[in-house]
Amino acid sequence: MSNPEDTAPKQENGAVAAATAPPAADVESQTTAATGFGVSEIVSRWRREDLLRRRALALRGCGLILSLLAFVVMACNKHGDWKDFDKYEEFRYLLAIAILSTLYTGVQVSRQVRELSTGTSMFPLRKSAIIDFIGDQILAYLLMSAASSAIPMTNRMREGSDNIFTDSLVASICMSFFAFFSLAFSAAISGYKLSTQSYI
Amino acid sequence: MSNPEDTAPKQENGAVAAATAPPAADVESQTTAATGFGVSEIVSRWRREDLLRRRALALRGCGLILSLLAFVVMACNKHGDWKDFDKYEEFRYLLAIAILSTLYTGVQVSRQVRELSTGTSMFPLRKSAIIDFIGDQILAYLLMSAASSAIPMTNRMREGSDNIFTDSLVASICMSFFAFFSLAFSAAISGYKLSTQSYI
Repeated sequence: MSNPEDTAPKQENGAVAAATAPPAADVESQTTAATGFGVSEIVSRWRREDLLRRRALALRGCGLILSLLAFVVMACNKHGDWKDFDKYEEFRYLLAIAILSTLYTGVQVSRQVRELSTGTSMFPLRKSAIIDFIGDQILAYLLMSAASSAIPMTNRMREGSDNIFTDSLVASICMSFFAFFSLAFSAAISGYKLSTQSYI
Repeated sequence: MSNPEDTAPKQENGAVAAATAPPAADVESQTTAATGFGVSEIVSRWRREDLLRRRALALRGCGLILSLLAFVVMACNKHGDWKDFDKYEEFRYLLAIAILSTLYTGVQVSRQVRELSTGTSMFPLRKSAIIDFIGDQILAYLLMSAASSAIPMTNRMREGSDNIFTDSLVASICMSFFAFFSLAFSAAISGYKLSTQSYI
């Protein structure tokens, strides 16, 4: 049943197999390359997310310092007679929003620092992204609103006289504006994180 | 060379083939199901995007009408003596922002209506998403700022007397606030579109 003719085709098959081997190896190397590309993409994505997290923390840290300054400068701005900030509703409003912003950014910064040091998240990712985005965005609008509402009265006062009261008002308004910029950029980052989270 | 024993294995092979056929069919149906799921996901994504586009158009349309109203009401608010809006910087600011917002939303609405009717985009998708997001967000901040800055002076005037001038001011401020809400939501949608666009 076994003759040389029977084995010849087998050798031919072997030759054919050997001839097809290189393409098979090529396919394998291509697959490896594709996997390598995927891994590098995921790693670059992680890096980008880590960078975003650190930037968000830095922005909220700036927001905390600036709103704290706005709050302290406005709260100390009492010089008797008409030079009391609490006789004008716009300055009281600015103070209230500065306190709110200080509390919010303080809580966020302490939470983020704890998360970075322990590596665990206090809330589910999705929920914390929603809270971050809505909080940042609302605080940004409120800070913009407070700073804008205080400007016209300060302008009118400075037309009459330029003293320590109006200078403190201007300082407080400027701090609120810078805090607004910090929180506006932070809101944009949170919005990006919220939108892209379902694709991770 | 051909005997029943030779054909028997073939039949067995056939039986084996028949026995293995159902799993093969299963795999195929699984593949079809996977493809079907992918298609349905893409279709649902298209539907969601179409819905978002229509909502963004509706929000910008609202923004256009409201800022036009704010602009017209404020521009007509001249009743002589101290009852002229252009004697107060906050009301001039509100008018300027209302005009800017009317122009911006007008251009955006006309562009979107043309895009919906012709089905083609005037700008590359990525660029138009960036312009949309930045434009909506800046206009939202400006409208919030303008409305907030006009409120304290209006409040003080209404403490003295309630007349057609202060009523028109209040109407204009309210319209600006509603326009702000439209553009704030529109900015959130544009931000979502911008963030998720690279994954389409």
